[in-house]
Amino acid sequence: MKATRTVQKILGYYESDNPGVKANLCRMLMQGRLGGTGKMIILPVDQGFEHGPARSFAPNPAAYDPHSHFQLALDEGLNAYAAPLGFIEAGAADYAGDMPLILKLNNSDSLFSNADPAPAVTGSVGDALRLGCSAIGFTIYPGSANRNDMYGEIRELSEEAKSAGLAVVIWSYPRGAGISKKGETAVDVVAYGAQIAAQLGAHFIKVKPPTEDIEQDEAKKVYQAEKIAVGTLAERVRHVVQSSFGGRRIVIFSGGATKGNAAVLEEIRQIAEGGGFGSIVGRNAFQRPRTEAIALLHEIMEIYQS
Amino acid sequence: MKATRTVQKILGYYESDNPGVKANLCRMLMQGRLGGTGKMIILPVDQGFEHGPARSFAPNPAAYDPHSHFQLALDEGLNAYAAPLGFIEAGAADYAGDMPLILKLNNSDSLFSNADPAPAVTGSVGDALRLGCSAIGFTIYPGSANRNDMYGEIRELSEEAKSAGLAVVIWSYPRGAGISKKGETAVDVVAYGAQIAAQLGAHFIKVKPPTEDIEQDEAKKVYQAEKIAVGTLAERVRHVVQSSFGGRRIVIFSGGATKGNAAVLEEIRQIAEGGGFGSIVGRNAFQRPRTEAIALLHEIMEIYQS
Amino acid sequence: MKATRTVQKILGYYESDNPGVKANLCRMLMQGRLGGTGKMIILPVDQGFEHGPARSFAPNPAAYDPHSHFQLALDEGLNAYAAPLGFIEAGAADYAGDMPLILKLNNSDSLFSNADPAPAVTGSVGDALRLGCSAIGFTIYPGSANRNDMYGEIRELSEEAKSAGLAVVIWSYPRGAGISKKGETAVDVVAYGAQIAAQLGAHFIKVKPPTEDIEQDEAKKVYQAEKIAVGTLAERVRHVVQSSFGGRRIVIFSGGATKGNAAVLEEIRQIAEGGGFGSIVGRNAFQRPRTEAIALLHEIMEIYQS
Amino acid sequence: MKATRTVQKILGYYESDNPGVKANLCRMLMQGRLGGTGKMIILPVDQGFEHGPARSFAPNPAAYDPHSHFQLALDEGLNAYAAPLGFIEAGAADYAGDMPLILKLNNSDSLFSNADPAPAVTGSVGDALRLGCSAIGFTIYPGSANRNDMYGEIRELSEEAKSAGLAVVIWSYPRGAGISKKGETAVDVVAYGAQIAAQLGAHFIKVKPPTEDIEQDEAKKVYQAEKIAVGTLAERVRHVVQSSFGGRRIVIFSGGATKGNAAVLEEIRQIAEGGGFGSIVGRNAFQRPRTEAIALLHEIMEIYQS
Amino acid sequence: MKATRTVQKILGYYESDNPGVKANLCRMLMQGRLGGTGKMIILPVDQGFEHGPARSFAPNPAAYDPHSHFQLALDEGLNAYAAPLGFIEAGAADYAGDMPLILKLNNSDSLFSNADPAPAVTGSVGDALRLGCSAIGFTIYPGSANRNDMYGEIRELSEEAKSAGLAVVIWSYPRGAGISKKGETAVDVVAYGAQIAAQLGAHFIKVKPPTEDIEQDEAKKVYQAEKIAVGTLAERVRHVVQSSFGGRRIVIFSGGATKGNAAVLEEIRQIAEGGGFGSIVGRNAFQRPRTEAIALLHEIMEIYQS
Repeated sequence: MKATRTVQKILGYYESDNPGVKANLCRMLMQGRLGGTGKMIILPVDQGFEHGPARSFAPNPAAYDPHSHFQLALDEGLNAYAAPLGFIEAGAADYAGDMPLILKLNNSDSLFSNADPAPAVTGSVGDALRLGCSAIGFTIYPGSANRNDMYGEIRELSEEAKSAGLAVVIWSYPRGAGISKKGETAVDVVAYGAQIAAQLGAHFIKVKPPTEDIEQDEAKKVYQAEKIAVGTLAERVRHVVQSSFGGRRIVIFSGGATKGNAAVLEEIRQIAEGGGFGSIVGRNAFQRPRTEAIALLHEIMEIYQS
Repeated sequence: MKATRTVQKILGYYESDNPGVKANLCRMLMQGRLGGTGKMIILPVDQGFEHGPARSFAPNPAAYDPHSHFQLALDEGLNAYAAPLGFIEAGAADYAGDMPLILKLNNSDSLFSNADPAPAVTGSVGDALRLGCSAIGFTIYPGSANRNDMYGEIRELSEEAKSAGLAVVIWSYPRGAGISKKGETAVDVVAYGAQIAAQLGAHFIKVKPPTEDIEQDEAKKVYQAEKIAVGTLAERVRHVVQSSFGGRRIVIFSGGATKGNAAVLEEIRQIAEGGGFGSIVGRNAFQRPRTEAIALLHEIMEIYQS
Repeated sequence: MKATRTVQKILGYYESDNPGVKANLCRMLMQGRLGGTGKMIILPVDQGFEHGPARSFAPNPAAYDPHSHFQLALDEGLNAYAAPLGFIEAGAADYAGDMPLILKLNNSDSLFSNADPAPAVTGSVGDALRLGCSAIGFTIYPGSANRNDMYGEIRELSEEAKSAGLAVVIWSYPRGAGISKKGETAVDVVAYGAQIAAQLGAHFIKVKPPTEDIEQDEAKKVYQAEKIAVGTLAERVRHVVQSSFGGRRIVIFSGGATKGNAAVLEEIRQIAEGGGFGSIVGRNAFQRPRTEAIALLHEIMEIYQS
Repeated sequence: MKATRTVQKILGYYESDNPGVKANLCRMLMQGRLGGTGKMIILPVDQGFEHGPARSFAPNPAAYDPHSHFQLALDEGLNAYAAPLGFIEAGAADYAGDMPLILKLNNSDSLFSNADPAPAVTGSVGDALRLGCSAIGFTIYPGSANRNDMYGEIRELSEEAKSAGLAVVIWSYPRGAGISKKGETAVDVVAYGAQIAAQLGAHFIKVKPPTEDIEQDEAKKVYQAEKIAVGTLAERVRHVVQSSFGGRRIVIFSGGATKGNAAVLEEIRQIAEGGGFGSIVGRNAFQRPRTEAIALLHEIMEIYQS
Repeated sequence: MKATRTVQKILGYYESDNPGVKANLCRMLMQGRLGGTGKMIILPVDQGFEHGPARSFAPNPAAYDPHSHFQLALDEGLNAYAAPLGFIEAGAADYAGDMPLILKLNNSDSLFSNADPAPAVTGSVGDALRLGCSAIGFTIYPGSANRNDMYGEIRELSEEAKSAGLAVVIWSYPRGAGISKKGETAVDVVAYGAQIAAQLGAHFIKVKPPTEDIEQDEAKKVYQAEKIAVGTLAERVRHVVQSSFGGRRIVIFSGGATKGNAAVLEEIRQIAEGGGFGSIVGRNAFQRPRTEAIALLHEIMEIYQS
């Protein structure tokens, strides 16, 4: 399927990448119901590793089975499915070629908790290639005392991935001794986290919806002096997108813990209004019974399409 | 010998693996008295390294000799024999091809005790290949401050093993500062440990039989809300198997310290009833006189066969 | 364009370098309005990574867009543009061959602050090559407890860069537990920092304009005994240039935070008088509206040309 | 010279090794006066590194010269000579082919003392090969907080050595925070140290003569329950040999600090009676005047021959 | 020029080295006024890195220019010139082939002071080769908590250098938490430091002139029991030379801080009398005006020649 003009324009932002990377970016942007619109919904399922199986899958026991997530992403026409090594291995052959896959290359478990997050690298570019993935995924925690380890790891993985034609998706979640709990989603911090991911060479950046808080004193002065509008979520999303190379990098937003449909949809509306490129929808999809999940995802996609 | 339908179905779960890995998985599943049933008994003998020679072998001095364990696994028709480098080297030629071997690639000794376990890597994929092994074995200790080192090591070893056609067996034993002593066998923790091993790409997962305890508060809420049945060992085994990709990964259970035959057999019965794929029987086999060990193993296998 | 005699003389200082490196040094020295004079203005834009996007770009929102910096360097006839991976990737194709690029290979963010700076390596020599850069850039922080990590990293990167024909630019910013806050720009410390960069094999060295302070007691004795003139900025610049292999290494000076034009120009005059090879002008360029920036840069270049 | 039946039997224990390793094991077992008996005397001279030159060589100044040790080993008909890189380099050409050499690949000096020993790696397998050695030597300190570093190093070196046809000799000296001072030679600890070396893949294992002490409570229970005889040195040696794969690995015993001839010989007698495979005789040889050393070594060898 | 018999005899001590290494040892021993005598004067200039430029070069400002040191070594007929990467790069082409060069591969700066020295590796064997050097130089600090890092680094560099035909010069300067300040030059410690360097495989060893102190209690007993003569510097030098493989390794002595000519020459006389192989003369050469330096070096060389 020929890439739409919108998608071609976006691909143009990734001007230094080789055709292999561009092809995979294109695959993700052209897939599913939002294919061609320049908007994206990605299904991430790493909660089994991050929070444990019961907390993740017991609310909808079908979700214990790794095939269920491939099937959900396929049936719903999502743009891509992201998961750790084990989950991808368990379905990559049966669903080979059915949808773009993103192999999450680092993960944290919660049997040991670290004030300064330090995820383990749990997969490789070689794994992503042998499993037919389109991209690698990686989480950085700016603000953590261990951030440099992560920056170094993604630097190396990213160079290897790009040279092999794989796209790079960075989850940027500021957290750790460098910032307060509230600061994790402060608008200056979220925008800074997006900038770091972009400077590290991410193609797609995933951040949390920012709050009105401003964490850093030095930043506060500038936000006030320059009268940067951050009063509504839409304004904050717009600021984060601008902070991601003036809109030259795709930024998508996560939804977080399961919540009511109305709350989810209102958030999506603001993200779309602010120019966000899409959403990562995990627990709000796979922790609901199938029909509920389908209905919600349809509504989300409609917002982005309109 | 042609793989049975049961075994073929199990091999189908490992859909992303190459024929080399599948052949070795098949060898282990088709070996011995339980061959073809989809159930397994594995003999592991790493206690010499882990607890010292006298504590391990003095109760049955024939066990000092590495050949004795090969012979036991062979005579009894077990599915595989697992041991550290030295023990495998000391018999791999005389017993070449007689049974599938699993080279344990990390080990801890107890001359220095660590609240947060940190095993040493003591063998390599190259060693496993030159010694004719079918799989590598590796222990992870989720909950340890050093867990990420282990996850990183098995990630790398596992990728190398799979590319060389070797299967990967992960012993998942939560332990360390992240969890309480009692929590090491709590059902939520054991299920979480199994999930981590599965996400790390294990083919076979070995865990301890879980108790009724629930360690983590966040997990407790879900176990209660979703009414997850964990009252009997059989129920808990079923939950752990479900937590291992909805049954798409082989989970086997360890027996622990030597105990009376009746206790051993009752445990096995519950594991079998809960859908467990088999058992690792170490000290309960090699610390008994030969005829006793033989009798017990026969009874265990009969339970799994019925 | 044939290198001028001045440039040929400077290239002669880099006698041990291969023709690839010499060609890239030549490209940087022959580029732009100062091309051929042996003087240089470099535009560095790593503030997005180092201070966050709003603090860096909100004063002149056009600067959020990575293309704006390429365009500024080109329009103004600067000698080179230096930035981290993401910013270079975002324009290297559209501006391919238009100006020499310096890929900054390490960076610090300020979401976690470290008394002893420890930047992360964020790019590679391979990245610099595939992006068509002329040089790698690297920051060392002598005085930091982590300095040896940086020295080791640049040693390795530098060897690789030189063998691939790339030039090496070292930012030498003493900072950390080894020295006082005031000592960071003390003349003995700045000169020492320049010497370290030169001994590490830098082709171009970037330092801060030194103050009259002398930080180290052992050094103070010598400055007094030998009556080293450090009373004016011009004298101090001369001392720093002498400390950089008696003038055989190009040393350029940074401007620091945005300030009034008069202050900027007076500083430049002293640097030029003291024999400094040029300036790095970052925030004083891209944080001003375009026409203001252009006017200031012209005046700066005139000083160096005269 | 054709290997004797005794030696052939011993070589059979190393069933998984390649012919290159077997040839080197054979060379060591067939060399010198004890050649062919299955017993061995090895001359180790690493005291210069470990204790300093004066403490090691001043009692017999001829020993400062590295050639003296080659000559001693040759004249006396010892099975092999073991030393660090410098000492081997200083004689390996003049004595090429005259006797099997063991290159000690790690060493500690005593200018910095560490409660938890942590030796430096001071040579490589490549060094051993270019110097014509038959084996590598390596010291592990079970009980040290740093033991895992050593296990990891010897794992890697051992794999490389074996693939190059070199034998592996492990000195196992429990020491460090994990055990008491007295426990370093306790019989349970020495036996455990031998087991660890064997499991790590050592061909030859060197331990200290064990005392009657039992260090670990868990072990004590078993020694008492199983009535393991450890009353005489001969019994303890027998237990250590049994703990080394039931006699399938060569275990030799060190003599320690210089002492009177009678004491030395009585110890050797007990080691021989207990089935020990031989002795390492260092300071008791090279710290004596030549004729005394010769006389003592003759007596030692006679004991092993009888 | 054909090597003299004296030099041939010395080359014979390095019996295990390949012809490439021997050729470079020969070059250094045959160069300059002392060429062929078996004695050596080496000019080391790493003070710019170690102490800063002003402290090193301001007393004789010509010394800021890296060419000045090449010229001094050449004019004076010294055996070799040793310096860090930057200084060697800045003259290696113009002086190509004029004299043997030693590339110092590690260095410490004094902007951060460490009770336990931990130098940074600042050059490579590849650098030494591309710059036409005859040897690598490396400093170890026995007694430092970080000594094992240095031993490991020089082990690896040394193996690589020797295989490429380069000689290895080790500066052995005991210092750190393991020994007292006074102990740094105690005769037992200096002799031990020389032994360690020799065991690590150094061809040439550089130490400080030892004092009469004896640092370690265990050593003191032996020095007294064996009546080792250490009353005069000549005796102590003799002991250090003996401690360096009984004279089979070249040991040269440093002069330390600038001092009066008489003091320098008296020290040299004692070193020569004690059998020392020569001197490293740095600050006492380049910190003096040229004619003074020349005169002093001539007198030093005459002492060694007589």
